[in-house]
Formats: sequence, structure tokens, C-alpha cells
Amino acid sequence: MQRYKCIISYDGTQFAGYQVQPNKRTVQGEVEKALRKLHKDMDVKVSASGRTDAGVHARGQVIHFDSPLKIPLEKWEVALNTLLPEDIAIIHTEMAADDFHARFDAKGKEYRYFVYRSLQRSPFKRNYAYQYPYSLDIKKVNEAVPFLIGEHDFTSFCSAKTDVVDKVREIRKIEVVEEGDMLIFRFVGNGFLYNMVRILVGTLLGVGAGDISPGSIPDILEKRDRVYAGKTAPAQGLYLWEVHY
Amino acid sequence: MQRYKCIISYDGTQFAGYQVQPNKRTVQGEVEKALRKLHKDMDVKVSASGRTDAGVHARGQVIHFDSPLKIPLEKWEVALNTLLPEDIAIIHTEMAADDFHARFDAKGKEYRYFVYRSLQRSPFKRNYAYQYPYSLDIKKVNEAVPFLIGEHDFTSFCSAKTDVVDKVREIRKIEVVEEGDMLIFRFVGNGFLYNMVRILVGTLLGVGAGDISPGSIPDILEKRDRVYAGKTAPAQGLYLWEVHY
Repeated sequence: MQRYKCIISYDGTQFAGYQVQPNKRTVQGEVEKALRKLHKDMDVKVSASGRTDAGVHARGQVIHFDSPLKIPLEKWEVALNTLLPEDIAIIHTEMAADDFHARFDAKGKEYRYFVYRSLQRSPFKRNYAYQYPYSLDIKKVNEAVPFLIGEHDFTSFCSAKTDVVDKVREIRKIEVVEEGDMLIFRFVGNGFLYNMVRILVGTLLGVGAGDISPGSIPDILEKRDRVYAGKTAPAQGLYLWEVHY
Repeated sequence: MQRYKCIISYDGTQFAGYQVQPNKRTVQGEVEKALRKLHKDMDVKVSASGRTDAGVHARGQVIHFDSPLKIPLEKWEVALNTLLPEDIAIIHTEMAADDFHARFDAKGKEYRYFVYRSLQRSPFKRNYAYQYPYSLDIKKVNEAVPFLIGEHDFTSFCSAKTDVVDKVREIRKIEVVEEGDMLIFRFVGNGFLYNMVRILVGTLLGVGAGDISPGSIPDILEKRDRVYAGKTAPAQGLYLWEVHY
């Protein structure tokens, strides 16, 4: 048996999320189906760095699996890409130590969120960014950012639908980049709770729109209650960008 | 009755092309369906600057239609966009003269074709560019371009599946732009034959790949036979960019 680590990219539009669910098209389901074909009907379990929700994209999700097949490394990518649907691509494959784990060994992650600032809807961006037609004060958004950096209990920025008990996470970096009519949020941290990036974006947009004051972020964190943070920004703007080991 | 001229944009991925066909999802079909709803079940015929094939996109297709409704101009866009599916957007609406015709009054068109030069397939570009993993000599491509500029009989660059008799067209401009891993072809002309842009791109890629010599373009034109030009590049890289009046 050899453990393999792969970086995969997927367009989340047509998936019910990463994780296998009965009768739903999922990323894990499609990858395991491709591996099953390659292994002549043997089940191969795939583990990822974490789940992504329906509609959420990945530029660099990381998975691992074990295989008894003696396929040269450079052939894995071609073999798997041939068997995978067009909306999933294997970007990189490498041999990993037997005890490597895509989820438990992850030291950090980067997510990016794309906001399309336009009054005009775009058929080309509808599944790949969140169209936001209202005005935003980016200076205020940047004033709110430092309050979120560092180690905090992010209960207020986590969906209530979670089993995770320890809600303390460290955000290492938040960058707000304007590129033409795109506003891009970069989040780097040691880990993110369920819906955390989308609630952070919704809250920062609320700050930019003038509905939430930058200085109220410490209070929102302090409350440890989801109702005090902003809206959950929609799935299609979110990309799991990179996993750090 | 008032004639309206609209600029529309669509993602061609999920359409069987622009023109209405029985039991197929088409752009014209969806626009006429939206107009029918707005006109309380009255049929409203839509005319476009020209057809686009299945999978071909439009940034600036132009259509016209007549309506007895007294809707202020600024409301048309909102009303239609509300009724249209997400993959079609009305970008601009204006009142037109009674004799304006989207097709017959068009003085020229710009098409763009996007080639994604990468060995790695991209789930995000698969429907929006043509992935081309082979090497290209862009200098050679640019040597071939001048032979195509001007008025020519483009029979060799036209699909045999056409009823058009006069195959003389004028290409005013061809630009080849490299932007990172994207190669973008811009074609401006007074009109384009069926599959003409896709055959031009396939031929220019053939030149870049070394399969066709730049100097053989005049011969290919001279032959007036489709078999002498290059392959038809796939639909998903093509965009009807702008129509000039």
C-alpha cells in the first residue's frame, strides 16, 4: 500500500458539497467513483483537508488515499483526470508518508471570497462571485479587519449547525484587494469553523455598507452568539484556495 | 408599437444555440418566453444580429422587438432581467426607430476567441475557453494574420452546412493578444460566415503549431474549399463580443 496526496480543483456549482451524501452528486463521491474504476471495483476511501459546502469552489483542496496499484507517479494524474468529470481536476499528485493525513496534518488554510461589485448582473460571474450592487466604504472594511486577526473564540462567526465544541481559531491574515469591479477577500488561518468565512465576509460587507461599525467587532466576538454577526455571504463567491502543511 | 433595441449577454453553455428549435433550450426561446410573460401571453418576435451556435457565448449580442407596452425605458431592463434565466442578462435597452433591424443594420461585428494554453485542465475555464496544451509559435501566427485581412472569398473558412451563396466578407482587424496563460484572438469584420471564426482560429493554431505555413494562407483562400483550412476550434472559446451599427 502506498499513500498518495493530491491537490484537486473543482467548480462547486454542480455539487451538493464535498462530502458523500446518499443520492447526491458530491466531490468525494466522484473522486471515489473514479478510484473505484481504476482499482477494478475495489473501494478506496478518500480523506480531504475538510468539507466544502454546495456551490463552494476549490482551487487547492487536498486529499489523500491509499492504493496497492503500482502506477508511476506521473501516470496517476492522467489516469484519474481521464476518469473524473470535467468539473474536478487533479492538479498535483505526490507520494506521502503512511501516516500523512490531509485533515489532521493541515497547519493552515487560505480561503478567498470574490465579490462582484456591479449593478449589472453577469451570466459569466453568477456562479463564481457574489454580485453586490450596493456602495461600500472599503476604508471602513479595512478598519474592521485588525479586530478579527489573532486567536479568538469565533462562536459568533459560526453556523449553529455544527458539532464542533472548541470554537477558538487563529486568523493570521485578512487582505482586502480591489481589482476592477472585483473585491477579493483573502483569509489565512489555522482553521475555519462551519460557514465562518462566509459570515466574516457578510459581516465585513455589513461594515462597508455602514450597517455595522468597525469598532463593534470586538463586541460581536465577545457575545459568542451567531445572531450578532452579519449575514452569511452566498456560497458561490467562496474558494478553498490552498491548504498549508 | 415601439421598437426596442437591447444588448444582451449570455453564457452559451446550457443553450442549444441562439435560434429557436423545437424542444431545445435556446437563447431566443428564453427571451421570447420572458417577453410573452411580460405581454400577458401575447407572442413577441425577437430578431438578433445573427445566430450563435450551441456553447458559444455572447458579451454583446443585439436584438430588437416591438412592444405595445408603455413601460419607461429604465424599467425594461429590470422587468426582463427578472423574467429571464440567470444565464442571460439584458445589459442595455434603448428605443429604436421603427425600421431599425438588428441583423440588416449591423455594419460589423467583433468576435473574440479565448485559448487557454496549459497542460493542466481547469474546472473553471472548461466552458469558457479552449484548452490548448501544445506549444505555439506566436510569431508565425502573426505572420499569417495579414493574409486574412481585407475582402476575400472565405468559402474555405466556412462550414459546408450553410445556405449562404455570397461568401465574400471583409475582415478589418485580427489581433492576437497574450495575457498570461490566455491567448486571445480578436476578429473585427463586416460579417462572418457559419463557423468562420472557429475555422480561422483552428487554422491560426495550425500555423502556430507548425502544421500550416503562414505563407499558405493565400492558397487556402484561393482553393475555395473547406478541406484546405484548419480544424474548427471548439465552441466554448468563442464570444460574440460586440455588434457595430
